[in-house]
Amino acid sequence: MATEEIKEMPKSWAMVGGEGPQSYTQNSSYQKGVVDASKEMVTEGIKDKLDFKSLGFDSSNDTFRIADFGCSVGPNTFFAVENIIKAVKYKHHAQFNNSPPLAFQVFFNDVPTNDFNTLFKTLHSNRKYFAAGLPGTFYGRLLPKSTLHFAYSSYCLQWLSKVPKEVVDSKSPAWNKGSIQCDGLKKEVTKAYSAQFQSDMNTFLNARAQEIVGGGLMVIIMAGLPEGIFMSQAGVGMYYDLLGSCLVDMAKLGVISEEKVDSFNLPLYYSSSTEIEEIIKVNGNFSIEIMDSLSHQIWQTSKKSNIKVSVSGGRAVFQGLVEEHFGSEVVEKIFEHFAKKLADNFSIFDGAAHEHIDHFILLRRNVN
Amino acid sequence: MATEEIKEMPKSWAMVGGEGPQSYTQNSSYQKGVVDASKEMVTEGIKDKLDFKSLGFDSSNDTFRIADFGCSVGPNTFFAVENIIKAVKYKHHAQFNNSPPLAFQVFFNDVPTNDFNTLFKTLHSNRKYFAAGLPGTFYGRLLPKSTLHFAYSSYCLQWLSKVPKEVVDSKSPAWNKGSIQCDGLKKEVTKAYSAQFQSDMNTFLNARAQEIVGGGLMVIIMAGLPEGIFMSQAGVGMYYDLLGSCLVDMAKLGVISEEKVDSFNLPLYYSSSTEIEEIIKVNGNFSIEIMDSLSHQIWQTSKKSNIKVSVSGGRAVFQGLVEEHFGSEVVEKIFEHFAKKLADNFSIFDGAAHEHIDHFILLRRNVN
Repeated sequence: MATEEIKEMPKSWAMVGGEGPQSYTQNSSYQKGVVDASKEMVTEGIKDKLDFKSLGFDSSNDTFRIADFGCSVGPNTFFAVENIIKAVKYKHHAQFNNSPPLAFQVFFNDVPTNDFNTLFKTLHSNRKYFAAGLPGTFYGRLLPKSTLHFAYSSYCLQWLSKVPKEVVDSKSPAWNKGSIQCDGLKKEVTKAYSAQFQSDMNTFLNARAQEIVGGGLMVIIMAGLPEGIFMSQAGVGMYYDLLGSCLVDMAKLGVISEEKVDSFNLPLYYSSSTEIEEIIKVNGNFSIEIMDSLSHQIWQTSKKSNIKVSVSGGRAVFQGLVEEHFGSEVVEKIFEHFAKKLADNFSIFDGAAHEHIDHFILLRRNVN
Repeated sequence: MATEEIKEMPKSWAMVGGEGPQSYTQNSSYQKGVVDASKEMVTEGIKDKLDFKSLGFDSSNDTFRIADFGCSVGPNTFFAVENIIKAVKYKHHAQFNNSPPLAFQVFFNDVPTNDFNTLFKTLHSNRKYFAAGLPGTFYGRLLPKSTLHFAYSSYCLQWLSKVPKEVVDSKSPAWNKGSIQCDGLKKEVTKAYSAQFQSDMNTFLNARAQEIVGGGLMVIIMAGLPEGIFMSQAGVGMYYDLLGSCLVDMAKLGVISEEKVDSFNLPLYYSSSTEIEEIIKVNGNFSIEIMDSLSHQIWQTSKKSNIKVSVSGGRAVFQGLVEEHFGSEVVEKIFEHFAKKLADNFSIFDGAAHEHIDHFILLRRNVN
């Protein structure tokens, strides 16, 4: 049985829970911007590409099942899901205008250490769908065969299942000393990260291929890079480099050890659209219906607007990782220093030669 | 759509979360005793009553879906679910011995304020089923139509959706002044509680009737009373009366107000098997396949064994209710006093004329 594949990601991969001032709930305006920017594309994608007849729907099939893979704690996931439901209803009415209304079931997925308590407490009480939580890594099976009609994953798949081991191995040619990310400056490091990304994407696609019915759709939104651009050339890469330099500063001050800094790498990989396209084609379970990038001004705006937003947004995402690696007693110090350094150096982002992009991909599960 | 019926129960209905010394996880040995005592009956019930053919299974239906309504935070729910899966697998093999193995999906239901985080973190990593959390009151719809093959609810349905309003209304003939429970000493109080129970059971049965496929089974285990016996005649009723008398003591000491004590009633109703049978028959969606009571020694044992277990078990269950009504600042004082009073009066339980019983009911969803 495929459930034997179930595996768990480490605790640190979860966003900061609760609803407090440092929570993901309160600090995910960038991710909300991504949801907003993709809203119209999701609506149009469903309108153009969803076909109830090829999904095997007739008047007796009354439940349409949706999953959000990597939903975190809301409210972004609720906006995204409600938008999908609205578009699906519209299309259903267009295809079968006299049949009874669809029922909807929505599976909210994230790692078991995600704050599902907050997610569940903030579910809208007047929601018009059946809600279920799905604890587990999406790099593995989560649902029975042919469960879903629509899968969605926003801003998650740039997160790898793990940091490739070579990049933290001092004996490997891919040792990434002096950097905490795949900055693109060392070929062996890029190769190791790219191989991990390829393997993880394949695992994800294979799991979803089992769970999505033939003809079902999947929207993937993920951070990426324009063709031929490295992380170190993009504003976001400079942001991560600045976090890295804070860790080096902390090591110099004796707050954390140099070895700890050397062994810390972000499990993030920003891919190009060519790279993703190739992986999806080789995988073979899905056809690419739309491959685009989001046009939005969030990154530019958040850069200019507000250093505080920039720090707290990063903290809501990375605190778990930093805490797990360096210990909870130094977290406050590290992020305080990061805030200061970011304020002192904020102008460097205006000089960034490039910006990252957000891929928008709409896939259709091939009918076997 | 039936999802419009969704409604939430107040926070206090959830058991104490986490895994600490006062948690339900650490203090549910009585409920575990119920699970153990019912294990064999569930196994035998599935063996005798589950019929895959009437459920419409053939070799192409590979997922068997189970829900535990009112699962709390484990580990009891995991034991119960694993026992069900084992029995279902055995029966499936007996009915279709050459077909591929079933996949299992399990929905863990409880109110949205239940500690799902602890539940999800303690899911067995080597489990052989797909797990999902289902936040919401079971007195309402939680799943799409015809989702489940097997429903289970252990030690929950004696909890009402609310305290009947008459019993806390000083102008009503059913005003329950001087008691915190349906002790059976006042006809009007019993009538109000009984009507609430009847209404709640009907709501529960109607919701499950939608969710369970024709031919599907449901096991209900719930606290009850032998025919003709009142709560005040049973050991458990004396236990609740003792808690009530502690509240009166606290009011006399000025820790809480008398009005607060008068307006506090437990949303619990212990029914007789005749009463339940009548409700199920009038409801008409299910046939009664087995109606029995559990033979177990837990109550007797826990009475004799350990005052500490008796206090902490009660606290894990009732703390939320007490806290919501009287305020968090007095909870510690109330339960300290309860522990002392219980120790001083523990011998009274040996003099109890009767004991409550635990109903074991196996229902089959009628095929429409």
